[in-house]
Amino acid sequence: MKDLFGSPGKVSGLLLRIGQCLFASASIGVMASASGFSTTTAFCYLIASMGLQFLWSFGLACLDIHALRLKKDLHSHVLVSLFVVGDWVTSVLSLAAACSATGVVILLGRDTNFCRVEKQLACSTFKISVALAFVSWFLLAISSFVMFWLLASV
Amino acid sequence: MKDLFGSPGKVSGLLLRIGQCLFASASIGVMASASGFSTTTAFCYLIASMGLQFLWSFGLACLDIHALRLKKDLHSHVLVSLFVVGDWVTSVLSLAAACSATGVVILLGRDTNFCRVEKQLACSTFKISVALAFVSWFLLAISSFVMFWLLASV
Repeated sequence: MKDLFGSPGKVSGLLLRIGQCLFASASIGVMASASGFSTTTAFCYLIASMGLQFLWSFGLACLDIHALRLKKDLHSHVLVSLFVVGDWVTSVLSLAAACSATGVVILLGRDTNFCRVEKQLACSTFKISVALAFVSWFLLAISSFVMFWLLASV
Repeated sequence: MKDLFGSPGKVSGLLLRIGQCLFASASIGVMASASGFSTTTAFCYLIASMGLQFLWSFGLACLDIHALRLKKDLHSHVLVSLFVVGDWVTSVLSLAAACSATGVVILLGRDTNFCRVEKQLACSTFKISVALAFVSWFLLAISSFVMFWLLASV
């Protein structure tokens, strides 16, 4: 079970965490560079949620590096329980943020003509940011399932 | 493990499924009764997603009743795997629908003054429907975790 893809203290786990950090920070960067994002709660929430995900994944990436260098075992019941709770809370918040932003992007771009009328709204930039958030969430979801599987099998 | 709260073929599992059906159908009913919902993709998607959740939960509720009456065991590996996949797919789709609708409701009611200006939009009805969808998703999330736990412990 300890050799499971993406488990803590393994190279695959570290790569997943680095991927989550990269996509979350890219999503924040792209959204923050878009003009007019701050008037919409869903876009501000996306930035906050991706920020939380970045901090969480960055912390666990550092822990993975530490475990890999010193060949430490991170599979204790207490540690895995902590990872499960953190991963699931962050994962649900990230999915919620990505989906609420998607709802707004579709409303602005397709249901109404806001994107065509209000030229200062950077609608294509919003879309890129949301897509990056979904990739980041997907990588976090893989980690969450692996952690839950580890906890249930311990 | 078979006595786990909410596991298939148990009274607690059946009650969870009935709760999911009730709240999903209430969410659909409230949203469908609101004027102006059909112009927004997120609200139409909420109805579609809650419809899917209703069908899935109703099917499993019938299976639970059948298992309770004939005292059948639903804990085979194949059946639990099927429940896990179905529960997780439905659960993610429901959360996505509820969150995208929430993003739109907040945009209409708080970020802009659409709800005050366009009186034909039934904003408070949208809110009730979204709240019911969240309750339905929460009950489904409990079932999903129980199923995943069962699969990992089998």
